[in-house]
Amino acid sequence: MVDIATRVYNHKWKIDPIVRSLIDTDFYKLLMCQSIFRNRPDTTVCFSLINRTRSIRLADLIDEGELREQLDHVRSLRLSRGEGTWLRGNTFYGKRQMFRPDFMEFLENLRLPPYHLEKRDGQYELTFEGRWPEVMMWEIPALAILMELRSRAVLATLGRFELQVLYARAMTRLWEKIEKLREMPDLRIADFGTRRRHSFLWQDWAVQAMIEGLGERFTGTSNCLIAMRRDIEAIGTNAHELPMVYAALADTDQELRQAPYRVLADWHEEHDGNLRMILPDTYGTEGFLAGAPDWLAGWTGIRIDSGDPATGAETAIRWWQDRGEDPTKKLVIFSDGLDVDKIAELHRRFHGRVKVSFGWGTLLTNDFRGLVAGDGLAPFSLVCKAVSANGRPTVKLSDNPAKATGPAAEIARYRRVFDVGQQSAVDVVV
Amino acid sequence: MVDIATRVYNHKWKIDPIVRSLIDTDFYKLLMCQSIFRNRPDTTVCFSLINRTRSIRLADLIDEGELREQLDHVRSLRLSRGEGTWLRGNTFYGKRQMFRPDFMEFLENLRLPPYHLEKRDGQYELTFEGRWPEVMMWEIPALAILMELRSRAVLATLGRFELQVLYARAMTRLWEKIEKLREMPDLRIADFGTRRRHSFLWQDWAVQAMIEGLGERFTGTSNCLIAMRRDIEAIGTNAHELPMVYAALADTDQELRQAPYRVLADWHEEHDGNLRMILPDTYGTEGFLAGAPDWLAGWTGIRIDSGDPATGAETAIRWWQDRGEDPTKKLVIFSDGLDVDKIAELHRRFHGRVKVSFGWGTLLTNDFRGLVAGDGLAPFSLVCKAVSANGRPTVKLSDNPAKATGPAAEIARYRRVFDVGQQSAVDVVV
Repeated sequence: MVDIATRVYNHKWKIDPIVRSLIDTDFYKLLMCQSIFRNRPDTTVCFSLINRTRSIRLADLIDEGELREQLDHVRSLRLSRGEGTWLRGNTFYGKRQMFRPDFMEFLENLRLPPYHLEKRDGQYELTFEGRWPEVMMWEIPALAILMELRSRAVLATLGRFELQVLYARAMTRLWEKIEKLREMPDLRIADFGTRRRHSFLWQDWAVQAMIEGLGERFTGTSNCLIAMRRDIEAIGTNAHELPMVYAALADTDQELRQAPYRVLADWHEEHDGNLRMILPDTYGTEGFLAGAPDWLAGWTGIRIDSGDPATGAETAIRWWQDRGEDPTKKLVIFSDGLDVDKIAELHRRFHGRVKVSFGWGTLLTNDFRGLVAGDGLAPFSLVCKAVSANGRPTVKLSDNPAKATGPAAEIARYRRVFDVGQQSAVDVVV
Repeated sequence: MVDIATRVYNHKWKIDPIVRSLIDTDFYKLLMCQSIFRNRPDTTVCFSLINRTRSIRLADLIDEGELREQLDHVRSLRLSRGEGTWLRGNTFYGKRQMFRPDFMEFLENLRLPPYHLEKRDGQYELTFEGRWPEVMMWEIPALAILMELRSRAVLATLGRFELQVLYARAMTRLWEKIEKLREMPDLRIADFGTRRRHSFLWQDWAVQAMIEGLGERFTGTSNCLIAMRRDIEAIGTNAHELPMVYAALADTDQELRQAPYRVLADWHEEHDGNLRMILPDTYGTEGFLAGAPDWLAGWTGIRIDSGDPATGAETAIRWWQDRGEDPTKKLVIFSDGLDVDKIAELHRRFHGRVKVSFGWGTLLTNDFRGLVAGDGLAPFSLVCKAVSANGRPTVKLSDNPAKATGPAAEIARYRRVFDVGQQSAVDVVV
């Protein structure tokens, strides 16, 4: 029986929206947004979308009209009543009413601000400038839209049957990864793959696969919409944009050096428990930890997001020991460039020495490598970053020089201020 | 949107029929039926379904009530008008009106005769006794029903998600086989997998995969219903039941020795071209070819269905050469226990020396090996054979002693009459 109504309904869509909800975003964006809304609401920030994989010429692949339609659609979204209820009523990390009433009111009235789109040299230049708590909400939908429009452009060349085999293969591949993960005792792993997902539906499928395959070992997803619909935990804490903007706003080198700690001091006031996660690598992990105030050693854990992850974790363990903390009570979250073998290796090495957790991103939600001719569905390195704050450029160094962003002169200044020595480059996969 | 009507409709089914059409059967059954209807219509034959894989206790797995419902449903089927039109109007092997009006009339009025079902020792004993042209039509539906009920019994233990991953894996596996087949130039291959298919829908999917993946190199399917629906060629010629029954009806050893040639003499009168395929192994290929009349060497080709296939093909080539025929103009169809590696090996060896074609069966339509715990979906060796004719037992020897059927005394007599020497056993996979 053909469901004629559904078929007709599908055909009369003007577009097939990629982002259909304001909470189809990462949970940490909401946490950070609340913090910014409270502490730095009037900062003017510019976010810019950058394709680090220059060989993929997005402007040749993706029609500008379609891109604008998708972005415009996001601007038409408002928080739905059910979404508001879920955010207000849910327990996150065991805490009720994590979102304050004034912030919820802001969020319920939020519409995303205008975007600026240009084509240049086969790439799209997509920027968002405005009040920080508003423009920062563009990051995830903008990334998800570009990623999925690229998927759709490639998928449009395939026959119906080829599509079926493609997804059969992708499902098989993901399930085989999950079967390997099942062999690890006491694994804790979450989905961090919203931003570079193949598509919304595929991320949703991947999450269901993790739920079914890993049970309690799957601790949740960073995606609020999927967390809500699948009735699982929303996961996340904070990201580089906070220290990057705080740093850009610093007036002196002395203020600059203190900026990353200032971020965490503000965070410390607001949150406790599992939300007290240090992201130490924005301007080099070694220097950050060496100069950190003692109260930071009391935090729950550290997220390792660049550089060699084992080195980062060993550094953290030594730091805790130096500060008289028991590393076995501390949480280390690995979230950079993970796939199953790397997860297994890190789990073997650190399991028992610290509490280990994994935020699995692109190779959970977008591993279509080798599945179409020309590898046209391989994931690529698309980022959307705060590039300036109140007119001043932002800088990120990280523990991998290949991931540094910002004007060269500013990078040099930051390297001097934060006393960053020699760093070894790690290939950026995704 | 949930299609409520479809869902309600599905739920009100009394059963989900496995065989929904009288032409959901192998094309050669219809060809043989027409021949029998013309030459031996009043022979009383008993067909019996035998599970050669005793370790799979079908009567423990499959509910007797469900089995009866499925068999009863087949008895309610009649040739539909569209099916009759397709059989009358279609071109088979380039020939129009292959089915005579009197046979079509018989077929249009056919309802399958009663069955006899008993449980014994964890197995079902399922027999069909009656007029040969009627009972012989039970073979394929009976096999397909038992195979699919067993699949369903195992699938019923899986969750919704496990089912999806299962089929994703099976699809991926089959597609990878097809990709290997694509590398073989001038391949000719057909689906012969109706009788031991995982399910009807899966066979239909496999056929679509072959169409999309192999194009012209996929020459068709033995399944008439799928051939009709997918608008491809129906493939097949004749099978062991003809010589087995003719042999059982022989009154003397001399008549017995001539029975296999008598079958082909009857066939010779009716058919030409690609339908003149010799199936030489019923009582041993060597002896059959040695004693064959010269006109048989003029036939189009030979189907190799037991024993070592390369040996069988070499025997055929030598025979043609001895009879002054050019083997490069002859067709060899391999149809026993094939999978991709074996197909590749035989193709490499015989391509160019003869015209090579493959009838790919169980490992096309039922390769779920290793895909569920306990390997509960692995194919198994279920056969449905004519076991007696006019009260006399039938015998099959084949080129593999592991495949011999019939009473021991009769097997011994046949081995003597047909002068079958030492045979080497080949494992029967499926």
